[in-house]
Amino acid sequence: MAGPRGEYRKSAERRAQILEAAHVVFARSGYTGSSVNEIARQVGMTQTGVLHHFAGGKVALLRAVLESRDHGAEDVLAGRTGRDFLAGLVEISRRQGEQRGMVQLYKVLAAEGTDPDHPAHDYFVERFSRITQAVTAAYQAIAADGGLVDGVDPGRAAIDTLAATEGLEVLWLNGLDVDMAADIERLISGFLTAPLGQHAATSGPATDPSQVADQAPVTRSRQPPDHVSGRVDGNSDSGVPQSGARAGP
Amino acid sequence: MAGPRGEYRKSAERRAQILEAAHVVFARSGYTGSSVNEIARQVGMTQTGVLHHFAGGKVALLRAVLESRDHGAEDVLAGRTGRDFLAGLVEISRRQGEQRGMVQLYKVLAAEGTDPDHPAHDYFVERFSRITQAVTAAYQAIAADGGLVDGVDPGRAAIDTLAATEGLEVLWLNGLDVDMAADIERLISGFLTAPLGQHAATSGPATDPSQVADQAPVTRSRQPPDHVSGRVDGNSDSGVPQSGARAGP
Repeated sequence: MAGPRGEYRKSAERRAQILEAAHVVFARSGYTGSSVNEIARQVGMTQTGVLHHFAGGKVALLRAVLESRDHGAEDVLAGRTGRDFLAGLVEISRRQGEQRGMVQLYKVLAAEGTDPDHPAHDYFVERFSRITQAVTAAYQAIAADGGLVDGVDPGRAAIDTLAATEGLEVLWLNGLDVDMAADIERLISGFLTAPLGQHAATSGPATDPSQVADQAPVTRSRQPPDHVSGRVDGNSDSGVPQSGARAGP
Repeated sequence: MAGPRGEYRKSAERRAQILEAAHVVFARSGYTGSSVNEIARQVGMTQTGVLHHFAGGKVALLRAVLESRDHGAEDVLAGRTGRDFLAGLVEISRRQGEQRGMVQLYKVLAAEGTDPDHPAHDYFVERFSRITQAVTAAYQAIAADGGLVDGVDPGRAAIDTLAATEGLEVLWLNGLDVDMAADIERLISGFLTAPLGQHAATSGPATDPSQVADQAPVTRSRQPPDHVSGRVDGNSDSGVPQSGARAGP
């Protein structure tokens, strides 16, 4: 049994290497401007070798890169509700501030993905809808406990929170002096009867939002690597023009 | 003299056609994934023909497309200060809601442009810095008249306003039920002692923000077409890989 296990581990490592290369190449050239060949070169493999690990090709790689980012956020938010959930959003913003490359990649893919013909279009539409519902639910739970400022609508507060998160990333990437986590926390606190930073005050002296986030219980829910590309089986390139097929300028 | 004038008019029309085609192609494939050849085909010209009108090539076309958008915003904001200026931002958001293609293009270019090697990087960094200063100045002018809510910092209010504008565009492009202009107006009004919509109430019955914006004096400052690409003279393609030079997937 040592043989197959060794093969499995080696294959998982290869997948991880390919995924990291896809991340680098997509961040630099976007999805439309990237090729599987270019990603293969980054890891010293052939195109056929990459397709052995990601049979769905470029779309499978795109999906896997997007989902690996989502899993990071899901880890932070798992098991949280109400104020705890919102503190998790602040925590995610703080982590984004340490992952410029990933934020940049996400911005390029999300912008390309607004084209209905882009293979990530449905993914982004579904993702924004799902996140909006989750954040709305958090504000609704707080409202049920009387924790929302009078006149604040949970749905609108959710839109404002998500818009600020997306927009602050853009300003930050463009060199403005922005502390994304602090700004998001301030914005969320404006909707609440008690600032988010005082959330954990009953269990200790923590008023630093990062400490609050660290104290919150987090249930890890990361999926095994093989699950990452599970949703793209059967998808083809759905008509997106390949850069190599285009004539030079 | 009729000859040269006719030539000039014809040339200006050609430039406008090329610019429109560049807009369509960039919106679909981003800057990195587009080629001058593709833009030329859209208008039924040769690549050499396009380069006759835009000697700087793809970078010149990129710059011209970005600046044509900026001129629209400058037209709205020209001559405005304080609350009038902020009402102009709401008006711009309202116009964006009617220009999905332009907003989408801008998002793709701004995302690509966060890469320091991208030819539009300096443009976006400078643009965000300049706009932040202008919005901060508007809030400062209102603060000087006692029109800001206690505790609101003009610089932070400007960052929040711009982040919301950028972020709401992302949510809107991804299919969420967002009224960008109404949301921006509500956010700005939250910083003010009197809501933005009541701004023009002293000069008439207008409480509709669109009417407020329409009443404000606007000095048109659009530049002649030849000026559009004036700042790109001497720029070359600055090392951005051409899609045609890349191998297929």
